[in-house]
Amino acid sequence: MKISFLPREFKFFDMFDQQAACAVDAAVYFKELANSGVFDATAIQKMRDIEHRGDDLTHAIINNLNKTFITPFDREDIHSLAHELDSVIDLIHTMTNRMRLYKLSGVNSDLVQFADLIEKSVVALSNAVRMLRETKNSKAAFDACIEINRLENMGDQLRDNVIGNLFENTHDPIFIIKWKEIYEEAETVLDKCEDVANVVESILVKQA
Amino acid sequence: MKISFLPREFKFFDMFDQQAACAVDAAVYFKELANSGVFDATAIQKMRDIEHRGDDLTHAIINNLNKTFITPFDREDIHSLAHELDSVIDLIHTMTNRMRLYKLSGVNSDLVQFADLIEKSVVALSNAVRMLRETKNSKAAFDACIEINRLENMGDQLRDNVIGNLFENTHDPIFIIKWKEIYEEAETVLDKCEDVANVVESILVKQA
Amino acid sequence: MKISFLPREFKFFDMFDQQAACAVDAAVYFKELANSGVFDATAIQKMRDIEHRGDDLTHAIINNLNKTFITPFDREDIHSLAHELDSVIDLIHTMTNRMRLYKLSGVNSDLVQFADLIEKSVVALSNAVRMLRETKNSKAAFDACIEINRLENMGDQLRDNVIGNLFENTHDPIFIIKWKEIYEEAETVLDKCEDVANVVESILVKQA
Repeated sequence: MKISFLPREFKFFDMFDQQAACAVDAAVYFKELANSGVFDATAIQKMRDIEHRGDDLTHAIINNLNKTFITPFDREDIHSLAHELDSVIDLIHTMTNRMRLYKLSGVNSDLVQFADLIEKSVVALSNAVRMLRETKNSKAAFDACIEINRLENMGDQLRDNVIGNLFENTHDPIFIIKWKEIYEEAETVLDKCEDVANVVESILVKQA
Repeated sequence: MKISFLPREFKFFDMFDQQAACAVDAAVYFKELANSGVFDATAIQKMRDIEHRGDDLTHAIINNLNKTFITPFDREDIHSLAHELDSVIDLIHTMTNRMRLYKLSGVNSDLVQFADLIEKSVVALSNAVRMLRETKNSKAAFDACIEINRLENMGDQLRDNVIGNLFENTHDPIFIIKWKEIYEEAETVLDKCEDVANVVESILVKQA
Repeated sequence: MKISFLPREFKFFDMFDQQAACAVDAAVYFKELANSGVFDATAIQKMRDIEHRGDDLTHAIINNLNKTFITPFDREDIHSLAHELDSVIDLIHTMTNRMRLYKLSGVNSDLVQFADLIEKSVVALSNAVRMLRETKNSKAAFDACIEINRLENMGDQLRDNVIGNLFENTHDPIFIIKWKEIYEEAETVLDKCEDVANVVESILVKQA
């Protein structure tokens, strides 16, 4: 195995930036879809392309890890940061798929609100990831993590409100099954962003 | 960053005790609610206060971790113990919220049984956490972890029984959706207690 | 505590092989049940026996870990490999239980397809685990992990297809609730196999 030292290690930061940018692409595109209410074959294909790009970036990070001796932070943390960020993209992809699978079309203002929280959280996440480079000045990264936690709390409340309304306003169990799942998946994206933020915090903590 | 040595490290044990005590408060209060069958605004508010206290304790532990150089056990384990214990409290809070959201009132003897298992498991957990101080004598802590596993198995069986009955005894799908979720959440609290027990075991294992 | 050195460490590989073989037993038996369409008391008992054997092996690994000073790879990884492999067996057991609980009998060709993917994935997993012994030659183990990822992707697509069909072809919400859960549990077994593969990859990465 050919082993690289310093030059290669900086690649990890760039690769995580690309992976976080991919998550931002997924979140921005999901918001666009939610606002249009059209989850057609083209939309599914475009989201799948984003998800595949995310998978490729994840594998590239893991492969790079295998060939690098010195890493900017713990190998296990690189591993779990790559996998957790990938999960954020996967979940947005899954949710998009389910919208089409369940033939749910038309603008749903509750879903638009979720899409908005998700976009904000993923953008904060990409900022936190970018700031992993500067562990001397980790306050901004911790602040981004706090913001991600705040958005997750808002998502919890939104989910409770919309699911409460769902049971109040309809008596069609199949309609309830479908939308309850979509709303819960949307909230799970925010949970997963919080998981990534926890990994980021843990990396900062170790370097403190 | 101001760095403390020995005096500060003992704080972690006290802080985890407080967090575990907060989980016990949540479990005891949930049992009280299940026995009364009243999940009203006051109950929701009181459970939310417990959950906020849990959040504050979690953040305090993480902040303390950032300012401490020598820790009584691995930094990562402190991080994950704090987050997993917090999840136990969060799940009890979520379940309480759902009871109100779904307008499920009245005493349900199956829920009372779950509340009883949860209380026992969280109390065993708080004992295991307290015994992290004495790694020379870890048998009692391992025994508490075994008890938590046993209660989780009982919870699995209880969930299977009550969900089987649910499908036998009612044909209202919306009623099934609501109660099936509550029973599964209750069982998930016991799963999460087992996750905390796994972290405790892992800490003991490393110090062995 | 009596501490063993080299002789004992090799036991871990044998114990993980036994645990993986137990997972293979569960997967092979589940496929047999899916092909027969009979989930009766005898089937449930036999699957429970496999699951108990899995639990005993997990506890034996953890106990061994407590008494061993030098381990072939990180103590935490031994801990999480044991627990994740155990989860694969637990999930197959849970799914079998649910089939009986929901009184779902008769051959379902979609479930047969899932059972087939699960068997393939668990067999690949047992190969990956066996190859942990030879970290100098880790390509075959990485290839097994890639195969497990591929099977998980196939499982995702299968789940989407069968759940889409479920909503198309029936309007009985209780039937939908039951089968949707079974299909999702089947797919979760494949997800969990991927989690084990991630632990295996992480072990290989650290030893590279």
